Amino acid sequence: MSLDQVLTHIDADQANALDRLMDLLRIESISTDPAYAEACDTAADWLVRDLNSIGISTSKRPTPGHPMVVGHTDGPGQHVLFYGHYDVQPVDPIDLWESLPFDPKIEETANGKVIRGRGSSDDKGQLMTFVEACRAWKSVTGSLPVKVSIFFEGEEESGSPSLVPFMKDNAAELKSDVVFICDTGMVEPNTPSIVTMLRGLLGEEIIITGPDKDLHSGMFGGPAMNPIRVMNRALAALHDDQGRVTLEGFYDGVPELPEQVEAQWKALDFDVEGFLGEVGLKHPAGEADRSGLEQIWSRPTCDVNGIWGGYTGDGFKTVLPSQAHAKISFRLVGTQDPLKIRETLRAHMRACLPQDCEIEFHGHGASAASTMQVDHPAFEKARLALSDEWEKPGVYVGCGGSIPIAGHFQDVIGTQSMLIGFGQDDDAIHSPNEKYDLRSFHKGVRSWARILAALAD
Amino acid sequence: MSLDQVLTHIDADQANALDRLMDLLRIESISTDPAYAEACDTAADWLVRDLNSIGISTSKRPTPGHPMVVGHTDGPGQHVLFYGHYDVQPVDPIDLWESLPFDPKIEETANGKVIRGRGSSDDKGQLMTFVEACRAWKSVTGSLPVKVSIFFEGEEESGSPSLVPFMKDNAAELKSDVVFICDTGMVEPNTPSIVTMLRGLLGEEIIITGPDKDLHSGMFGGPAMNPIRVMNRALAALHDDQGRVTLEGFYDGVPELPEQVEAQWKALDFDVEGFLGEVGLKHPAGEADRSGLEQIWSRPTCDVNGIWGGYTGDGFKTVLPSQAHAKISFRLVGTQDPLKIRETLRAHMRACLPQDCEIEFHGHGASAASTMQVDHPAFEKARLALSDEWEKPGVYVGCGGSIPIAGHFQDVIGTQSMLIGFGQDDDAIHSPNEKYDLRSFHKGVRSWARILAALAD
Repeated sequence: MSLDQVLTHIDADQANALDRLMDLLRIESISTDPAYAEACDTAADWLVRDLNSIGISTSKRPTPGHPMVVGHTDGPGQHVLFYGHYDVQPVDPIDLWESLPFDPKIEETANGKVIRGRGSSDDKGQLMTFVEACRAWKSVTGSLPVKVSIFFEGEEESGSPSLVPFMKDNAAELKSDVVFICDTGMVEPNTPSIVTMLRGLLGEEIIITGPDKDLHSGMFGGPAMNPIRVMNRALAALHDDQGRVTLEGFYDGVPELPEQVEAQWKALDFDVEGFLGEVGLKHPAGEADRSGLEQIWSRPTCDVNGIWGGYTGDGFKTVLPSQAHAKISFRLVGTQDPLKIRETLRAHMRACLPQDCEIEFHGHGASAASTMQVDHPAFEKARLALSDEWEKPGVYVGCGGSIPIAGHFQDVIGTQSMLIGFGQDDDAIHSPNEKYDLRSFHKGVRSWARILAALAD
Repeated sequence: MSLDQVLTHIDADQANALDRLMDLLRIESISTDPAYAEACDTAADWLVRDLNSIGISTSKRPTPGHPMVVGHTDGPGQHVLFYGHYDVQPVDPIDLWESLPFDPKIEETANGKVIRGRGSSDDKGQLMTFVEACRAWKSVTGSLPVKVSIFFEGEEESGSPSLVPFMKDNAAELKSDVVFICDTGMVEPNTPSIVTMLRGLLGEEIIITGPDKDLHSGMFGGPAMNPIRVMNRALAALHDDQGRVTLEGFYDGVPELPEQVEAQWKALDFDVEGFLGEVGLKHPAGEADRSGLEQIWSRPTCDVNGIWGGYTGDGFKTVLPSQAHAKISFRLVGTQDPLKIRETLRAHMRACLPQDCEIEFHGHGASAASTMQVDHPAFEKARLALSDEWEKPGVYVGCGGSIPIAGHFQDVIGTQSMLIGFGQDDDAIHSPNEKYDLRSFHKGVRSWARILAALAD
């Protein structure tokens, strides 16, 4: 009964909700660039003010970096913690933007109206879906259906250095029954999606040194070992002809899909050629015997993210370089052990090394995959609420990326997190001309209103 | 008789010869940097003045770039053309120099006195060995034993763009019986060396494009083909386990060494481990069944001179890049056909390309190897003259590098060239702290005095 009134209120208040979001989008809260530190602070202040105005008792909390925003309400039943981030990516290359990144606009497109501007999707637009749902509940009923806490950070786009220390220092305050993280997307424009699998990430930088200085390839070419040749050979050996990673034991801990999930994914009828077509590709390059969705969500991968060595400028220099460098990363699933894989990788690289060469490794992060406990009662409640709003069954999906925050809530405060978001594949997050569908924003607000009601049942 | 007097004069005049070289070394004639254009002109003027002062009728000749210096004498018998270059390499990185590059100094080292400064070895010190030999002959006898012409350029370190056009325009004037090029070194500190084999060079830049933009390796890793993976695989396949190049037909036209040359090279007792030890290596990386000298001088090679793609800055970015780039080159010998090898390489790369990727090629030079006709009578005469001076048999050697000028004299004016120089492996040409052994300079002058006499016989 109240829910219907709340939804009606949300529809009626849509223009005001949009005005508020536009205000927040105008704040240039780029977290990586110290020149924007004050803007980050301004964004935190804006949120503190807005949350307090709707009766969520909120304060700005200092960290060594940008501040946290933490708010609480009293309420019956379960305790829900909502996480989002108010910082945004830098705007470079600025000349590729068709309008100013911090002068947000509503634009008509072939797929409907969109909110154009930096942070519209990642993550200001998304976090405001939850704030607006709370505002509507408060406005209509004077209270929220469950106890709600808010937790916004301002360093997500710069590696969240203050996050875990803050969570540790304030664990009791943040402890809750479930955490909602609104920083993901929908598997298809109309299919509400709850991410239940996040791939882990292992990053490694490798430096191979051959001669102790750059050489002239005429004087030394032949007898002097070229470290780029060694690097190419070692990296080329990481995949077989079928797209499988060849490291010994690499697939240990890679589970087959549960039948229920497999059935859901099949029902999605994912168009891998369409997905790849968006980026100029057509043929899936992962393991040949796996579907496109499995290749992104539930199968591990290995990618060279960067490689360099020798002369890379204009023209030609016949240098035989001293060093070759590569940055490579693995996306991990199931219970694959990142540290064990790091050791296997290093052993492989060393085995490829001729007597003369030396090799150096620098680890860049090693996080295991996360798999959510979908038998937590909130999962089905949220999925059904989403299904009602979107008039299409919500699905449990994977996410190829790594969102360490989900694991942190589990590890630091012992709370299960749920990733629900309304972004679309074409939102261009981290890129010029970022947008958020008006439909995502509006139905996102309505979705949270329904989820809050469902959790109260 | 005269020769003995000339050699005695050279010994007596050594300090003055050195002063003259120091004067020339002080001129900052860096040809690649337009800021030094005037200095290049000054160096040309200096040489014109010096050559005229010893009775070689010389003028500065304009080109679209830096000027040529051309001089002539009358004389009996054969017509000898001498080539050198007065321009020098840039001095970066300047902070690695232990003294100022254009403030030359005589230094005492463990291996004797050296002239320290940019251009001391490459090529001002070398070209002055010939000028001083002419000066001594003129001074003692009033004439030269043979007809001598001089041809100096000022663009050798920047690709010699004006050279071939100038040679074509002045072919009749430059036509001669033999060309001496003094821009090479000695195979061992005391073994005079005539380079009779120059490797050719084929350069190729390759760009492989996968996705049409850089992707997030979390969202796309798996199904999206990574062009670095393709590049690594294709380049790794260019060598087999024995260091041989695998391209089909690559060894067509690679000759076995003539027995006489093989015997000379064996007698050199080349210490490949010592050679590699100078650059921090130990084990020859070329074809396993070939000697170190063959690997540098008479066998073809393939080297990746540069490779890059993806994120190459500090830290880590999990990008799945749109493009991978490589610059690769082949050193060619015998009658290997550079254009045919370019086609074979391109066919190999295309064969390694998955359906989705595109490939682009940019050719960077394609020159065949040069093999000198050692049966030209000047070769044995010069070799014996060198043997007299250095009290050790002169040898015909190879040179791993490519010195296109030798081929140009053959192709444009139809004259056989001979490469004789007195540089040492540790001269650090193109590097900080370039030097030229005083012994190379002094005995170089004496060597040319002897060679001129020998040619008159």
